[in-house]
Amino acid sequence: MKEYKYLNHINLPSDLRKLKVSELPMLCDELRDFIINETAHNPGHLGASLGTIELTVAIHYVFDTPNDKLVWDVGHQAYCHKIITGRKERFHTNRCYGGISGFPKMSESEYDSFGTGHSSTSISAILGMAVANRLAGNTEQNHIAVIGDGAMGGGMAFEAMNQAGATNANMLIILNDNKIAIDKNVGAMSRYLLRITSSPTYNYYKNRLWNFFTQNKKDGQSKFVNFLSKAGNVVKGFLLRGSNLFQSLGFRYFGPVDGHDVVYLVKVLRDLKKVQGPRLLHAITVKGKGLRLAESDQTTYHAPGLFNPDTGEILEADTEGQPPKFQDVFGDTILELAQQDEKIVGITPAMATGCSLTTMAAVFPERVFDVGIAEQHAVTFSAGMATQGYIPFCNIYSSFLQRAYDQIIHDVALQDLPVIFCIDRGGLVGEDGATHHGVFDLAFLRSVPNMIIASPRNEIELRNLMFTAYRHREHPFAIRYPRGRGMLTDWKKEMHTVEIGRAEMLQEGEKVLFLSLGPLANNVQKVIAQLETEGLHPAHVDMRFLKPLDENMLQELSKRYPVWITVEDGVKKGGLYSAVSEFLEDNHYANRLYAVAIGDTFVEHGKVSKLHEQCGFDAESIAALARQVAAN
Amino acid sequence: MKEYKYLNHINLPSDLRKLKVSELPMLCDELRDFIINETAHNPGHLGASLGTIELTVAIHYVFDTPNDKLVWDVGHQAYCHKIITGRKERFHTNRCYGGISGFPKMSESEYDSFGTGHSSTSISAILGMAVANRLAGNTEQNHIAVIGDGAMGGGMAFEAMNQAGATNANMLIILNDNKIAIDKNVGAMSRYLLRITSSPTYNYYKNRLWNFFTQNKKDGQSKFVNFLSKAGNVVKGFLLRGSNLFQSLGFRYFGPVDGHDVVYLVKVLRDLKKVQGPRLLHAITVKGKGLRLAESDQTTYHAPGLFNPDTGEILEADTEGQPPKFQDVFGDTILELAQQDEKIVGITPAMATGCSLTTMAAVFPERVFDVGIAEQHAVTFSAGMATQGYIPFCNIYSSFLQRAYDQIIHDVALQDLPVIFCIDRGGLVGEDGATHHGVFDLAFLRSVPNMIIASPRNEIELRNLMFTAYRHREHPFAIRYPRGRGMLTDWKKEMHTVEIGRAEMLQEGEKVLFLSLGPLANNVQKVIAQLETEGLHPAHVDMRFLKPLDENMLQELSKRYPVWITVEDGVKKGGLYSAVSEFLEDNHYANRLYAVAIGDTFVEHGKVSKLHEQCGFDAESIAALARQVAAN
Repeated sequence: MKEYKYLNHINLPSDLRKLKVSELPMLCDELRDFIINETAHNPGHLGASLGTIELTVAIHYVFDTPNDKLVWDVGHQAYCHKIITGRKERFHTNRCYGGISGFPKMSESEYDSFGTGHSSTSISAILGMAVANRLAGNTEQNHIAVIGDGAMGGGMAFEAMNQAGATNANMLIILNDNKIAIDKNVGAMSRYLLRITSSPTYNYYKNRLWNFFTQNKKDGQSKFVNFLSKAGNVVKGFLLRGSNLFQSLGFRYFGPVDGHDVVYLVKVLRDLKKVQGPRLLHAITVKGKGLRLAESDQTTYHAPGLFNPDTGEILEADTEGQPPKFQDVFGDTILELAQQDEKIVGITPAMATGCSLTTMAAVFPERVFDVGIAEQHAVTFSAGMATQGYIPFCNIYSSFLQRAYDQIIHDVALQDLPVIFCIDRGGLVGEDGATHHGVFDLAFLRSVPNMIIASPRNEIELRNLMFTAYRHREHPFAIRYPRGRGMLTDWKKEMHTVEIGRAEMLQEGEKVLFLSLGPLANNVQKVIAQLETEGLHPAHVDMRFLKPLDENMLQELSKRYPVWITVEDGVKKGGLYSAVSEFLEDNHYANRLYAVAIGDTFVEHGKVSKLHEQCGFDAESIAALARQVAAN
Repeated sequence: MKEYKYLNHINLPSDLRKLKVSELPMLCDELRDFIINETAHNPGHLGASLGTIELTVAIHYVFDTPNDKLVWDVGHQAYCHKIITGRKERFHTNRCYGGISGFPKMSESEYDSFGTGHSSTSISAILGMAVANRLAGNTEQNHIAVIGDGAMGGGMAFEAMNQAGATNANMLIILNDNKIAIDKNVGAMSRYLLRITSSPTYNYYKNRLWNFFTQNKKDGQSKFVNFLSKAGNVVKGFLLRGSNLFQSLGFRYFGPVDGHDVVYLVKVLRDLKKVQGPRLLHAITVKGKGLRLAESDQTTYHAPGLFNPDTGEILEADTEGQPPKFQDVFGDTILELAQQDEKIVGITPAMATGCSLTTMAAVFPERVFDVGIAEQHAVTFSAGMATQGYIPFCNIYSSFLQRAYDQIIHDVALQDLPVIFCIDRGGLVGEDGATHHGVFDLAFLRSVPNMIIASPRNEIELRNLMFTAYRHREHPFAIRYPRGRGMLTDWKKEMHTVEIGRAEMLQEGEKVLFLSLGPLANNVQKVIAQLETEGLHPAHVDMRFLKPLDENMLQELSKRYPVWITVEDGVKKGGLYSAVSEFLEDNHYANRLYAVAIGDTFVEHGKVSKLHEQCGFDAESIAALARQVAAN
């Protein structure tokens, strides 16, 4: 490790607390340097973590963590937190298989009061803790949640604010306002935050007031605290709750403050520590702070991959001749369809860049809707558009679609509205780990009546399924595909429709039959090529549709292939294996069935290839299974 | 039908629009009388519908429904809407099998722009419609959503407001503020609404302003509309968006107005119709309006059952000697446990009365948390409490738990926190119909690692499972039970723990084996008694746990019983049938398997007994199946 004057001696917050306040800015510089150097070589969520360094240092400096509880919303901004809470030496293993997680994780450290990954959970969790500790008679304990302005727009955060503001829970919400999640934040609240942070009049009075109250100490108490404890209700009411969104919800609102002035933050937090009840501190930060390129292109530097730590320049991997990402195929294809039919619209809850809806937005900005971090709303908004004859392609990552399960059932499927769900990040996603793997979708969607569920094995099939969904429009239609690259370089073929519920026989064979869903078909093809050399000849069907299942074809195959192996990038309980089990039981068939699927456990983080090995998805594992079952 | 001077001639809104404004109060009186008389004899959601009569009449009078779109949030307040949109003659079939639904339903009427049932969906849906119609170039079309103050606290409503407020969508939200959902509304927003409606200063200026602008017409346009179109931005900004929660979110806020003054409502809506962009009208209504007893006991009269239409007196059914409701068993039992362990807390998202947490709340008010209509938050709040050593019993109706699926996976199960889920209204619920049947829970929970899933066959088992969950506390634990009465009158036995994952052999037999989960065990017992008289001797196991499945017992039973029938009050795809299918396939067993479960379709409304017949859950249907499979 590089020599750092301060950081070398900081392993835990207790070390940090030995520093003078005036030394903290230097420590922050070192932390920034450390994070830039580490993530340059071991990619991760750079931008958000650079934006929270001063906040993190100030919080751990002022509060008595881990006794005081601290929850990081989403959690990918918590690198600095990890580094100064005992994980500096292991930080080079961040997001690696067997290494530390890229998100806070209770099992990893007592300083991670609550695991995060999905957005907008922190206020609920910290309120639960604050209420519990108050019940236990412990009113001195502090409870802090740090939440971004994007996450604050998630409905769950509002639900939690709504309860919290009516309690006397000892909690401090720090609103980390950087105006951006992955893409620029949208919505009325973002505009509101911009208005209150950019209004000169508002800020003039706010700052005068703030300075007046926090300037001098008197017997260890600032005027501010004196004021709060002594001022009459009328004055307090006027000053503290009259005119502000958060005050409307029962919070005491403070700020906005500069989230990169660590000395000032320490002062403010010390004051706020003495106030009781639900409080919100509004801190303005800059995503990517301290790395010029990251500050100026915040979307790209959200998670930039490998880059030059000195210049910030991104080291582009050579992708010449590689197949495209499924995301790009989606993006190009929806644009192509949208050019043909003006009723096509694209909807995404804050994942426009990640899912490539940006491609369509560049041409048809008025027909692409980034609704913010709001999966529930995204689905029902899509349903509303469908009732008026529009054709919504609603793109949501699989693990975030869990947020909209009720809306899928109650607002879409029950009314049989032809919303087209493009489910991105289906299956194991790799380094983001357990919170982000999209492995439950096949199971939770299969139970829902009226749903059509498909998964393409390659880019051409993705295009065809999108075209089919567009043409079909009799039922809700889900198309699920993984994160990352496909397998074909020559993929931009003319689209044609696929028969709903029709599987495709890819290869006839003997005895053993693979039934695959999605791009793991590719691994199966490799296995078959390998096994051919060993004298084994498994057959292979791409099921293509999980629902409706191609029962006609399965009927016929049941007579010819005694041994079946289902292959799917999802949980075994409830998905394709389950569907085929039900088929065999419904028909009282004696075919022997085996599964390549995820067992009843959460899968951790690591490279996809590594996780595939762990779950038995790689060609070698599948081949081993096939050899074994063929021999029985 | 009774003779009504006006109502007899009203079948559609077009009839309504022929009346003079001054005649509308009389029509409202008649509608109130009609609804009271109808629901007195055919029970339904009385209170909410009595509160919206004037709003409903005014909306249909002013707006061009069904061309203008109207969405009723939750929808049980839409009786008046149903009556004046072509369903007066069929209203006596409300909620009956084969009759009209108790909720708006697109397939029932073109006036039902969007089906509802669950809370907080209306703003998303109406925004989707408004945005679609604006895209189509139709800027004149109106889009109205009526949403209660309780539903407005749901996160999804906030997500929708957040997007809507940043658009120019032509939409009007009518906030139907009656301070109560089923129980009294809680939370910071409720307090806020109370503050703005009860502040004399606020209302004095608000009313003066309102009257000034709406008093006189000038060339068909009110001063108000003139003002809005002419006033400079500074003035508008000051008056219209300065200081209000909804204005912070980009809505123009109007009100509060008296929601029972139909003449004034017509005037206000006519003015608001001429304003463009997102608007919110805050109307104060009284739940149960016009029926004295209903006004004074709003929780009871939410859905009072049979009552005397003249006095409002509830006709108590004679329940002497009947078994208790599962809800009461839950309520009494959690209180009993809470008396023994002060760490036990109860959490419910706005269903305290419905699930009987009120029993515990009466004794330990500080340990029961009604978090408002906020299922997502309820689950993660429970998780937060669990991290601090508290023992949360989180009670949520099955169909509403769909709202918290991601929180169950991401915040509870992934961290393996011992939250105890008491899932009320599991299975078919009867008259509330498709939106409220709790039939997906077994399927969607079974995929989730770490979950324990149990369902009691009777009241004693419910108590034992609650006690077991309380004692266990190593994993999240779900206990699922139905709406309504149990089967035992002598149920208050001393509790004992049950071995996790252990099924119970209730009856040995020959050839055919029933594997049941939950109280349908009772029907199976009847079937066995009947079949014994016919010389058939099926065996019966109460699985008790869906997960972990008692594979040891199933292993042993597979050798002795060649024919298995699973029995469950839920969907076949993904639930018990699916689990047992997987077991048989995992082991390559040849036992023949049959299902008593819900097929791949949504089940409509009607009495539970009727729906049981339809789904084959009644003793006769099960017996017929058993006879048939025994003969094969």
